[in-house]
Amino acid sequence: MNIINIIDKKRLNKELTKEEIDFFISEYTKGAIPDYQASALLMAICINGMNAREIVDFTMSMVHSGDMLDLSDISDNIVDKHSTGGVGDKVTLIVMPIIASLGIPVAKMSGRGLGITGGTIDKLESIPGYNVNLSLEQCKENVKQHGISVIAQTGDLAPADKKIYALRDVTATVQSIPLIASSIMSKKIAAGANHIVLDVTCGKGAFMKDISMAKQLAETMIEIGKLANRDTRCVITAMDQPLGYAIGNTLEVIEAINFLKGDMPEDLKEVILEIGSEMLKVCGIGEDIENNKKLILDSINSGKAFDKFKELVIAQGGDVSYIEDTSKFEKATYQLEFKATQNGYIKEIDSYQIGEYCMNLGAGRKRKEDSINHKVGIILKKKIGDYVEIGETLAIVHTDDENINLDELNEAYIISAEVVEKPKVILN
Amino acid sequence: MNIINIIDKKRLNKELTKEEIDFFISEYTKGAIPDYQASALLMAICINGMNAREIVDFTMSMVHSGDMLDLSDISDNIVDKHSTGGVGDKVTLIVMPIIASLGIPVAKMSGRGLGITGGTIDKLESIPGYNVNLSLEQCKENVKQHGISVIAQTGDLAPADKKIYALRDVTATVQSIPLIASSIMSKKIAAGANHIVLDVTCGKGAFMKDISMAKQLAETMIEIGKLANRDTRCVITAMDQPLGYAIGNTLEVIEAINFLKGDMPEDLKEVILEIGSEMLKVCGIGEDIENNKKLILDSINSGKAFDKFKELVIAQGGDVSYIEDTSKFEKATYQLEFKATQNGYIKEIDSYQIGEYCMNLGAGRKRKEDSINHKVGIILKKKIGDYVEIGETLAIVHTDDENINLDELNEAYIISAEVVEKPKVILN
Repeated sequence: MNIINIIDKKRLNKELTKEEIDFFISEYTKGAIPDYQASALLMAICINGMNAREIVDFTMSMVHSGDMLDLSDISDNIVDKHSTGGVGDKVTLIVMPIIASLGIPVAKMSGRGLGITGGTIDKLESIPGYNVNLSLEQCKENVKQHGISVIAQTGDLAPADKKIYALRDVTATVQSIPLIASSIMSKKIAAGANHIVLDVTCGKGAFMKDISMAKQLAETMIEIGKLANRDTRCVITAMDQPLGYAIGNTLEVIEAINFLKGDMPEDLKEVILEIGSEMLKVCGIGEDIENNKKLILDSINSGKAFDKFKELVIAQGGDVSYIEDTSKFEKATYQLEFKATQNGYIKEIDSYQIGEYCMNLGAGRKRKEDSINHKVGIILKKKIGDYVEIGETLAIVHTDDENINLDELNEAYIISAEVVEKPKVILN
Repeated sequence: MNIINIIDKKRLNKELTKEEIDFFISEYTKGAIPDYQASALLMAICINGMNAREIVDFTMSMVHSGDMLDLSDISDNIVDKHSTGGVGDKVTLIVMPIIASLGIPVAKMSGRGLGITGGTIDKLESIPGYNVNLSLEQCKENVKQHGISVIAQTGDLAPADKKIYALRDVTATVQSIPLIASSIMSKKIAAGANHIVLDVTCGKGAFMKDISMAKQLAETMIEIGKLANRDTRCVITAMDQPLGYAIGNTLEVIEAINFLKGDMPEDLKEVILEIGSEMLKVCGIGEDIENNKKLILDSINSGKAFDKFKELVIAQGGDVSYIEDTSKFEKATYQLEFKATQNGYIKEIDSYQIGEYCMNLGAGRKRKEDSINHKVGIILKKKIGDYVEIGETLAIVHTDDENINLDELNEAYIISAEVVEKPKVILN
């Protein structure tokens, strides 16, 4: 087999065989194919696409490039949840204890944030003592005892994806539905779940900027799941403005705790109910989505979900007193008020720009090797559709740097004289 | 300016600006853009193409990446000739002395062969003593005294093209009309001619396999010439079977000498008359192609063309006694007869396979750094349309290796029971 012939086939928009895809993935992963040939092939895939069969082969080849976790000794009813990334997205923190409180075992491996996108592991590390680095064996033991464990990715899952993603990032070959779908699904399949619920975010702060792209991505991942024998569901959610009110690691943990105690921002509540209900459905709790939503609300209102979260924190060595009293969390040095300069209805709070602002505050990483500041971030006081008057506080910026430029935030906002409706949250 | 944005634009099939093209060419040539980004951009260009404006900017940017020869002190009526490559293509060896004998100054820089394609410089080096490495000043001096000089490429012409071509070769991005056209034209423009006549070969042994591709390439190069202020003409010639009867360096030089002495194989004669007439036309000798053909034949029949070739050889230090008596050329150790195994009309002599066979004999280079054996090659005894009987000699293989496999040559031949017409030579 010859990589030049493989590249040439895809340049001519022909279908690659399983053997050709396996050859590329394994030889590239071990360094036998140079970056310049890989990037030419990836560009040809970007432009000419891959069919469903090729995408599944591409995905499974990446799955087999590294470790595959086996969770079958816990249960054959394991559900994983993944978001394609957003700003203020604390859904995993909230939905996983809810699911666990309803009897579904949760063995969840999460990632760290990069760019404007936050990561669950960074958020959990805001809790003093919480150990994200349990071994897979410890994780499984915790699941057996407590029904839940959330840890950082363990093992060498889909190393081919890691290497290919790094190359795509610097060769303008990120924006490809087949490549995005296979990247996400390879990691989920390698992580050992039988059921996968995907939150496909869509809008200014998301990977997918428009709904047709988001739908294509969702369909492609469902197709991969079907052919790879993983029951896969997708929910498409809005990511034009940040989700909920808090952006930043500690700030989002506090919002998640308040949510589990019953203080639920409307948009976040809709996403949690939708994603959670789908998770219950794929795990066989019930086909009726409305009934599943009721089960979730009952779990929150009865305190069971919050108790499960505390149990999780204790089991992983975290100091539960912070969960019981969130005023204990260390705050950033300054809380600066960002105020409205005109009267009107908020028409836009650009989540990309808010995310970038928070990243620059130190809440996120520009590059993988950067460290982050858990305390900093933004608390929104108003959301799209709300009416504001001049001088009213739009947001509070939590920062350790007194000299930051608050005016830059104006670029994220559009305020309109006309009434603005609250935007839809669930888009599919 | 950012290379990732430039790649992304071309991925999305958008037009690149002159500044973006200049940035890519200059930064890549100096090593500031890595191969893996360049190959991604080249693949996007391969698939999505470039418009006429982009192609001219791409070409001129490569021209300006290195030296530009100035031949204006010789004449402002300099014509260059280039072939897109073929098997048995000795047209330059023959047509340049003819043109010079008709009063047009010839200052020709030629290349070496690679793969199945021979190079004029390798062929000239078959002549003992012939110095291909004159300086540009010596070359110009020879043109002033003798009206002709043919040397190896001098100076650092279009180094960007050299680097880009090497990358295209290993990333399946060779087959692109805009990239092929700009590669050829950048070298021709940098070499200083005012008029350019291009022999666009088409068929099994050529870069362009079909006539519509050849026409596209021709039109693209004419367009570049127009916008770059170089009068450019194209002749599309057949390259399904080898041109003439000889393939191999010394063997082709002998065929060229015989041609100039009046022994003209029919297909080669047609190409020489067509290309030569166009060259005379662009140089203002006359608009009437038929009359130009007559001038060429007169030059051959009067012995003036052959005399000019001898003058060229002497002026560059070659031993003219070889030209006067070609039996002096050293022969390969063995002349093996390849014979027909069936009766019939020759339908195909695949020039790609003949070229590959000769390369394997040592007549050509697999890689740039390989050395070649000038003596080896093939003399065809029959061409397409000829009738042969079992046991009749189809070709004589000149080789230094007694144990070569003659049977492999059968793959290049198709012999048919039905009458086969002689194929067309000039295709446009």
